[in-house]
Amino acid sequence: MGELLGRDIVSIHDLDLDEIAHILDVAATMVPAARGQEQRPLLHGRILAELFFEPSTRTRLSFESAMKRLAGQVINFGELSTTSVVKGETLADTVRMVESYSDVIVVRHPQEGAARLAADFTTKPVINGGDGAGQHPTQTLLDLFTITQRKGAIGGINVTIVGDLKYGRTVHSLAVALSRMGASLTFVSPASLAMPTEIVEACRNEYRKGNGGSVRMGSDLESFISAADVLYVTRIQKERFPDPEEYRKVANTYRVDVELLGRAKGSCIVMHPLPRVDEIDPAVDETEHAIYFDQAFNGVPVRMALLALLLGAIP
Amino acid sequence: MGELLGRDIVSIHDLDLDEIAHILDVAATMVPAARGQEQRPLLHGRILAELFFEPSTRTRLSFESAMKRLAGQVINFGELSTTSVVKGETLADTVRMVESYSDVIVVRHPQEGAARLAADFTTKPVINGGDGAGQHPTQTLLDLFTITQRKGAIGGINVTIVGDLKYGRTVHSLAVALSRMGASLTFVSPASLAMPTEIVEACRNEYRKGNGGSVRMGSDLESFISAADVLYVTRIQKERFPDPEEYRKVANTYRVDVELLGRAKGSCIVMHPLPRVDEIDPAVDETEHAIYFDQAFNGVPVRMALLALLLGAIP
Amino acid sequence: MGELLGRDIVSIHDLDLDEIAHILDVAATMVPAARGQEQRPLLHGRILAELFFEPSTRTRLSFESAMKRLAGQVINFGELSTTSVVKGETLADTVRMVESYSDVIVVRHPQEGAARLAADFTTKPVINGGDGAGQHPTQTLLDLFTITQRKGAIGGINVTIVGDLKYGRTVHSLAVALSRMGASLTFVSPASLAMPTEIVEACRNEYRKGNGGSVRMGSDLESFISAADVLYVTRIQKERFPDPEEYRKVANTYRVDVELLGRAKGSCIVMHPLPRVDEIDPAVDETEHAIYFDQAFNGVPVRMALLALLLGAIP
Repeated sequence: MGELLGRDIVSIHDLDLDEIAHILDVAATMVPAARGQEQRPLLHGRILAELFFEPSTRTRLSFESAMKRLAGQVINFGELSTTSVVKGETLADTVRMVESYSDVIVVRHPQEGAARLAADFTTKPVINGGDGAGQHPTQTLLDLFTITQRKGAIGGINVTIVGDLKYGRTVHSLAVALSRMGASLTFVSPASLAMPTEIVEACRNEYRKGNGGSVRMGSDLESFISAADVLYVTRIQKERFPDPEEYRKVANTYRVDVELLGRAKGSCIVMHPLPRVDEIDPAVDETEHAIYFDQAFNGVPVRMALLALLLGAIP
Repeated sequence: MGELLGRDIVSIHDLDLDEIAHILDVAATMVPAARGQEQRPLLHGRILAELFFEPSTRTRLSFESAMKRLAGQVINFGELSTTSVVKGETLADTVRMVESYSDVIVVRHPQEGAARLAADFTTKPVINGGDGAGQHPTQTLLDLFTITQRKGAIGGINVTIVGDLKYGRTVHSLAVALSRMGASLTFVSPASLAMPTEIVEACRNEYRKGNGGSVRMGSDLESFISAADVLYVTRIQKERFPDPEEYRKVANTYRVDVELLGRAKGSCIVMHPLPRVDEIDPAVDETEHAIYFDQAFNGVPVRMALLALLLGAIP
Repeated sequence: MGELLGRDIVSIHDLDLDEIAHILDVAATMVPAARGQEQRPLLHGRILAELFFEPSTRTRLSFESAMKRLAGQVINFGELSTTSVVKGETLADTVRMVESYSDVIVVRHPQEGAARLAADFTTKPVINGGDGAGQHPTQTLLDLFTITQRKGAIGGINVTIVGDLKYGRTVHSLAVALSRMGASLTFVSPASLAMPTEIVEACRNEYRKGNGGSVRMGSDLESFISAADVLYVTRIQKERFPDPEEYRKVANTYRVDVELLGRAKGSCIVMHPLPRVDEIDPAVDETEHAIYFDQAFNGVPVRMALLALLLGAIP
């Protein structure tokens, strides 16, 4: 396990398993302060800069809440159109401007690789808040935190991931991280939106290292539901389908409702990165299975932990 | 009088007269801190979320100033177009996201009833920051605070409300609240923009309960001006009139100027929720009558009081 | 030297040389806190309002960082289109609203004179954050601070200013301030973008007062480069040229690169108000000459000093 002070967090793979475990342990201690029930002014006088080249309410507000719960401050670069970028400034120059005004920078960008590029141009820690179809490491951390909190451990459980596994930003790095930790994985999607082969291979490679676990794949959610300890649902975007009729068929197939969950384990938890559209019936919200709103909350203590560690407020 | 801790403030009618009096008393103690002359860090570590589905600079900045004067923090959901809402998320899901990141939520929405709906989906206190033609309770509270500060008491005074009484968001609940407190009311407007019958009836009903007071109505401001202790002016919007010529006639009739105020009591105060366009001549600003900028300031101590009470920082 | 508490800073000429020197001295003490290495919670409970009628990321973020490094808070009026201004409110009314919510106001406006007008309508200190082709005094202060930090003193050095000297907002007041402090000036530009005669005369007038120094002008950067202690580069905007071919010729002539700097003094520093487009080759960033990113950072301690002085936190 390395020192987290000053580190860039561009990919979940920048962290080894001990570092991930340490972040999740610290996150657990942040929960009361994240709820506003306790004061932890660890980052008084420190500034987080948000450099968002595309909107993302949930990620943005979650980072802001995390920084402010720790008594830190936030400055927001604002939207692309209202900024120097329209005058032709390069990302490199923009980052070197922003680092003058802050202690840690969150970058969100539509293009894969942008966060890594940003990190190369500043000595301040950079956190990737999502770059295109690339990585979104704090989403992965909060997903892992949520599973750990609910299931105690990740090794040996079955995580069934359903929906758009091809384009879904969050599930690729989550799947690999889960396989490193020994969870078995089931990938359920229409054939046209299947998990990319390189991700499946990366998971199998982890299992071969002796972590145990296995990958199963298919398109029929009903046949896999009974085995799931975690059902991780993602949004299927209409615009991925050339034929709207094709979309409707798929969307209906993967809609999670109370009836489907009647065939799941009583302890099966349903996760979703949100926002959802129609993938989960609102009636599911009332069941014990639904933890997606808690999952969203968990973004706060996890990001508090990460910020406190990167800025050296916690060793 | 009930406990204010944790309450939703969707309508001024959610509050009884004792609760209103208590809020105004607390607001009076907040004035020095609202001016930055005193520190009252009552809400350190607490977060206010602004969920504004339409812009409102005055309401937004006033809430932000109030929260920050109390050492609290603010997160801003941002504008509709830059948020998850464009991805089709429901208001219910949005509110459940925002409550994860905050301790109290202000909702502003173009549709009547939206704030109540939001309150139904969260256990955190919700404050209505204006919902369409519906309620705007903190505006009502700051209006009542302003009158109380200037007139000592509300019972027995004459409040003359002039302008668009049909669509004007702020005047309906203000009128009912004033009648509950025993003020006599004069409603002055063009016939096409008269106070709705149900509001007039609600006021009369209050008087019948034994609070004293009476309602008068008319369209000729000159004939009512001499009796006014408070002249409450509202904006008449051009777009309400099919015929622009019709608008010009009305707008001129209700323009408050120094000449008109020459026929008012020397102690008559002129109020306006702002922004004004042409309803009040700028020359009025220099007179003792003009208190609309103080009224705008009063939004800060009133909202400080409300936030401190709802979050339990003051009993 | 007058008292800075409560003063408006609309133009650099609002300040005498002793006041400028005092601000720069205080700024030097702010550097560790500006870097987040030290806590200076001088402005706890105080609020800065940003009233930006046109976007300016660098100025805005720099003020926000300055205020927050001092434990103060910021409220942002937001963009023009989302505010009361669209309802027809006057600048005077807008300023009187904003002063209710804050202790100090930064105004940025596309029209020259707007900041002075704003200052006339409020008793709160107003800082001009740039008004059209007019003044931008905090940019001038940070430029002077940067030169002082690097060169020890300003009297006697040669400052060569190159680029668009006609429309460039920042260089007019900088040139006059430098001449007051005894720096010799060289103005290098295409003839069509030369320094306006009244500015040149204002500088010469300062020298005649006995401060020493001289003005030289020309269009050939190569012939002046060897004498420069400071090379201040500004952006030449394409849209100033009716003929794009004409622009390309000029832009190439004034592009600062490593080869050009080979003929400069080893101690020559290169400044730029940023954002740059093509005026400075990125390879220059790696040389000792490049200080434009430090210059950008210096906006923070300088604005911290100014805010602390105007609000009376430092005498």
